[in-house]
Amino acid sequence: MTLAAERQIEDVAAVMRDVGRRARAAARRLALAPREAKDTALVEAAKRLRETEGAILAANAADVAAAKAAGVASSFIDRLTLTHARLASVAEGLETVADLADPVGETISSWTRPNGLRIERVRTPLGVVGVIYESRPNVTADAGALCLKAGNAAILRGGTDSFRSSAAIQAALVHGLAEAGLPEDAIQLVPTRDRAAVGAMLSGLDGNIDVIVPRGGKGLVARVQEEARVPVFAHLEGNCHVYVAAGADLEMAKAIVLNAKLRRTGVCGAAETLLVDRAVAASHLAPLVAALIEAGCEVRGDAETRLVDARVLPATEEDWRTEYLDAIIAVRVVDGIDAAIDHIETYGSHHTDAIVTDDERLARKFLAEVDSAIVTHNASTQFADGGEFGFGAEIGIATGRMHARGPVGVEQLTSFNYRVHGTGQTRP
Amino acid sequence: MTLAAERQIEDVAAVMRDVGRRARAAARRLALAPREAKDTALVEAAKRLRETEGAILAANAADVAAAKAAGVASSFIDRLTLTHARLASVAEGLETVADLADPVGETISSWTRPNGLRIERVRTPLGVVGVIYESRPNVTADAGALCLKAGNAAILRGGTDSFRSSAAIQAALVHGLAEAGLPEDAIQLVPTRDRAAVGAMLSGLDGNIDVIVPRGGKGLVARVQEEARVPVFAHLEGNCHVYVAAGADLEMAKAIVLNAKLRRTGVCGAAETLLVDRAVAASHLAPLVAALIEAGCEVRGDAETRLVDARVLPATEEDWRTEYLDAIIAVRVVDGIDAAIDHIETYGSHHTDAIVTDDERLARKFLAEVDSAIVTHNASTQFADGGEFGFGAEIGIATGRMHARGPVGVEQLTSFNYRVHGTGQTRP
Repeated sequence: MTLAAERQIEDVAAVMRDVGRRARAAARRLALAPREAKDTALVEAAKRLRETEGAILAANAADVAAAKAAGVASSFIDRLTLTHARLASVAEGLETVADLADPVGETISSWTRPNGLRIERVRTPLGVVGVIYESRPNVTADAGALCLKAGNAAILRGGTDSFRSSAAIQAALVHGLAEAGLPEDAIQLVPTRDRAAVGAMLSGLDGNIDVIVPRGGKGLVARVQEEARVPVFAHLEGNCHVYVAAGADLEMAKAIVLNAKLRRTGVCGAAETLLVDRAVAASHLAPLVAALIEAGCEVRGDAETRLVDARVLPATEEDWRTEYLDAIIAVRVVDGIDAAIDHIETYGSHHTDAIVTDDERLARKFLAEVDSAIVTHNASTQFADGGEFGFGAEIGIATGRMHARGPVGVEQLTSFNYRVHGTGQTRP
Repeated sequence: MTLAAERQIEDVAAVMRDVGRRARAAARRLALAPREAKDTALVEAAKRLRETEGAILAANAADVAAAKAAGVASSFIDRLTLTHARLASVAEGLETVADLADPVGETISSWTRPNGLRIERVRTPLGVVGVIYESRPNVTADAGALCLKAGNAAILRGGTDSFRSSAAIQAALVHGLAEAGLPEDAIQLVPTRDRAAVGAMLSGLDGNIDVIVPRGGKGLVARVQEEARVPVFAHLEGNCHVYVAAGADLEMAKAIVLNAKLRRTGVCGAAETLLVDRAVAASHLAPLVAALIEAGCEVRGDAETRLVDARVLPATEEDWRTEYLDAIIAVRVVDGIDAAIDHIETYGSHHTDAIVTDDERLARKFLAEVDSAIVTHNASTQFADGGEFGFGAEIGIATGRMHARGPVGVEQLTSFNYRVHGTGQTRP
């Protein structure tokens, strides 16, 4: 079957080069677009999504039917499926992004030099953002909206199984752009399911992609990180720790550990390892383990942990490295904060790590020395989220140290330049 | 002749992997070093440079003799040569960096969420910085010092002709590190002149280089930008413009154009093209051209410019693209600010561009719409410099949009993370 939205393409490389060129041209115009135009585009796109709900759900039904026929897993079908409620939430998401402050043009800092020059550092868009994601059609709207708000053009490449659904949603976004007088190429969907298109994006499309954001499982992120010739905002995994240190309040520790592990086990900010300091092990270890097991969590522990509860399974070296994304936790007793930090630096993924303690000195040391995008004191690791940080929305969480780190919201999708105001100054 | 400082190396790749591993280990320790230790290292290194001046100048004399024997250009010999005065200035440079504020640990911003979580965004080091430069031994000290101040380990690879000089300077830096109790691997010099070492650095040394800064001519920068698998802070060229717009004061325009072009012609912030708006061409074009020619500058103009002064040579399309780095300027009459911006976006290099005008509306438009790292209003393009910006020192100027842009000082050599202070919060 030929899809109306999918072009018959022989030369994928040529088509992708053209996508890149059009994105760059759109980005130039978008960079100068006033806030009102961008917000109008988002609000009109939300309206259009609601108006064309029937067509979008029909496109999605075709995607779902094809995926079922191909025999994919039910969790995959669940992520692929759109409903009235899910589409309503996608549309609301667009309106939420419209309500965010416009980062572009914001003066980050300014100072005056002894010669009278006033220098401003001002936020500008990044340029063109490539987003590569799996078959979750809602990402088409979420990612497109965040890129647009930050003044960037977006090149979106969703999972092949969601092609019809993503195309239908992208059509609504393009309608919004047109209504606002903005370039329709500002949010492009890669017009082919050919996997060669991904390779073309990773090569940077002749300098026409400035950054790539992969959204999806470890396999996708690993490939993008390995092959991309342009910067990538991503995290490969979230092997997050909770360290219950000396001076930890037991009830607080219990609440944080249960929340960090079990609130949602499939998110990157979920805790995977619990470290209990020997100083509090006698009082805290058994109740923490019992609480986890009684809440339905499998506990894999070191020798000391297995001694306090017969239900604890043995942990192997591999467990310290594992992001379970499931109701399983590894537990280890550590000798003091330096051993805890060593463990986290050895096995962790520099995503989100927490300390529980009432000892401010220990907390300060942990926050200063653990080299992770997010470190928390007496707070659950599950707060690792752009919304929880007050960013309004996020396109993902980055564990790299370049440009963006932690939740990537509109602000992290910008660059800056320097604007120098003189009165005729020349350099001696 | 075997150099004492150069190791006999058979397996360059293995040696470079080891350099990378040691740099990463040093970076971890350096990230936690207090300001005092870093400053002590710099001050002690400056002292050592002065104390070992004889040995450094002797090493340099050997480099210079070998380079002369190889028949290199005199400008190359000039850059390679160290003198008492130049070494004194290198030592002072180290002390200047010691005096800079420590960026590491600085709270960039902080805010409190409705649930009481206090979130801080705090500067952290980037990690390991690779610096690839030509035969200017002073860069060994300048780059090493800036990386150290920002808490980063440095892997320095200078030009092969300056190997002895750079090794002698690096020995002083390592002495400073040792005196301060900091890891000596924090500032490493690649221990071989084998060019394969550069390729190894560009590959990122198994993830042990976080960013590469090339310092040198266009050939070096182009190779690094083309081949590096890690982020690069650089500018390929500085094709900078001065646009004399409607409402420009003629005397101010003259002063700025002469300074931007001729103060120093070999720097990346030197102007290469003058754009004169038709609105002021009748009054301003001839005097600006005459002033340039009388100051010893060759002028290559479009047809209209040639009409006002018989000494103007014809400009070709190629001239608009050329970074002369010499006393030559291209001059063109443009129809209004949009045409000026179009010219700059078409031919420029996104480095530094200036508008001269008393019309605030035009200035605002130019500063907002020209997509360059630095845009100036009524100020010379030659202010494109970290020192002039008040950064104290710079490792280079970047024209990319990721992470660093414009002058790269200690602050731009840092990353950040989020530190979340709670009182037991869990996520609902």
